[in-house]
Amino acid sequence: MKLLSFLHQGRETWGAVVGDGVVELAQSRPQQPTLLDYIASGDYLHAAQHVEGLPAVAKLADITYLPVITRPEKIVCAVRNYMDHHQEVLAAGMQRELSAEPPIFLRVWRSQTAHNQPIVRPNVSDSLDWEGELAVIIGKGGRNIAEADACDHIAGYSCYNDGSVREWQFHAKQIASGKNFESTGGFGPWMVTADEIAPGRELKLETRLNGQVVQSSHTGHMIFSVPRLINYASTIFTLSPGDLIITGTPAGVGWSKKPPQYMKPGDVCEVEIEGIGVLRNPIVQQA
Amino acid sequence: MKLLSFLHQGRETWGAVVGDGVVELAQSRPQQPTLLDYIASGDYLHAAQHVEGLPAVAKLADITYLPVITRPEKIVCAVRNYMDHHQEVLAAGMQRELSAEPPIFLRVWRSQTAHNQPIVRPNVSDSLDWEGELAVIIGKGGRNIAEADACDHIAGYSCYNDGSVREWQFHAKQIASGKNFESTGGFGPWMVTADEIAPGRELKLETRLNGQVVQSSHTGHMIFSVPRLINYASTIFTLSPGDLIITGTPAGVGWSKKPPQYMKPGDVCEVEIEGIGVLRNPIVQQA
Repeated sequence: MKLLSFLHQGRETWGAVVGDGVVELAQSRPQQPTLLDYIASGDYLHAAQHVEGLPAVAKLADITYLPVITRPEKIVCAVRNYMDHHQEVLAAGMQRELSAEPPIFLRVWRSQTAHNQPIVRPNVSDSLDWEGELAVIIGKGGRNIAEADACDHIAGYSCYNDGSVREWQFHAKQIASGKNFESTGGFGPWMVTADEIAPGRELKLETRLNGQVVQSSHTGHMIFSVPRLINYASTIFTLSPGDLIITGTPAGVGWSKKPPQYMKPGDVCEVEIEGIGVLRNPIVQQA
Repeated sequence: MKLLSFLHQGRETWGAVVGDGVVELAQSRPQQPTLLDYIASGDYLHAAQHVEGLPAVAKLADITYLPVITRPEKIVCAVRNYMDHHQEVLAAGMQRELSAEPPIFLRVWRSQTAHNQPIVRPNVSDSLDWEGELAVIIGKGGRNIAEADACDHIAGYSCYNDGSVREWQFHAKQIASGKNFESTGGFGPWMVTADEIAPGRELKLETRLNGQVVQSSHTGHMIFSVPRLINYASTIFTLSPGDLIITGTPAGVGWSKKPPQYMKPGDVCEVEIEGIGVLRNPIVQQA
């Protein structure tokens, strides 16, 4: 199933994709006002039954998307988690060793933006870069989750564009500032439930800027696997339903190009992941 | 005024300190179920009027505290923001330059713990260190807040113990993992509203472990001022009411001592800030 959050008649709501239409599951589930609540209840495991007999409220092509999870409690992001990206970072002259443990940072939900909604280039820097990534949405929460059990805690997968303001990212050793600008993290268009993607399946991941391929890799190049990332994060804190694990980006970021290439107003950036779909964001300048 | 969150008859609630008692402001303000909501409404500016005539529901000595803001949307923390701490980091052999912009990282609310509640030493490492810090609570939200206007956005101040699992902090360049272990960030006992602390006033800050002074400094040693931190953070994203700016720690952390000294079960750590009060946390081992 493809589950998503969207605007309907001005209201934030959520539902599922059926054919070329969208059904509004929220309407029959008042106790679950958000997709996060549906996931937390565990009811999403029966989404296929829940959509049965419901009419589409809109064509998929006509809806206004919201970030799949509008306000995740936590967004845990892996840094340099693809071997091909690690190598381009070294080639660009940055001295970095692979760490024995997954390097992570945090994003805030306010940094997110939805499919078809703009990624906003801030006024303070023109160094806005793309990072196509696989997003993992936690279903069942927990602490100290063993790698062997991690897949049982995954509700589904989505596409993420971990939009990065490089100049601010490198203000200091800590990269949180450049990774958290408002409306820079594309997230969507929907989540594909975990039953549709076999654990460990290698998914082709491609990022395109104005139709031109800038990143082309697959999730098999990850240094720390999704189960390892879940294990690591859940050793630190309790993972909650709707939390996101953003799994890092492969080679081909704009910063590493000579000369660097950044996203500018008028550009369109797409992240496509096999078995999930295409996340598309136009770039606009901060108002 | 001193505003706080606490448990009363098993319910999460909030109110104000009056003498040696606590009044439950939440009872007469159903539209504001949390202290964060009270701050967001702006009504907190009239807290002195709101407590008038209300009886104390409990003795201050008897209540179970909650983190002052139980679920802040964002917790923005400054790294190495005291000149005396920067010098001890250099003396400990770490190569670090002062950056021209404030270095920041993020905590999640789940990493917080209240006054008198335990700071939890995780099972994966015994390198749990203290960091006494001034917490700034945002009142009026906003984006791109100028330094000159920043004080208008402060609702109040509190004490924070930015408990840090050093071993995990140094897993990689990004320190988020060691800074986010569940129940390691002491926050309380209350917030003192901004009208009681003149902007720029230098506040004595002292951290004690089992009664012994381990950090003794004052907020005048900050490298980046509170208004500068607010300006920097609000350039990245919209600050919201109840957001926290955690302003960094002075010299005297356990990690820099030779040999290093860490907090262990049975210890009691206190952070005292002039004009605010004493935040006290016993240390316990993770269950």
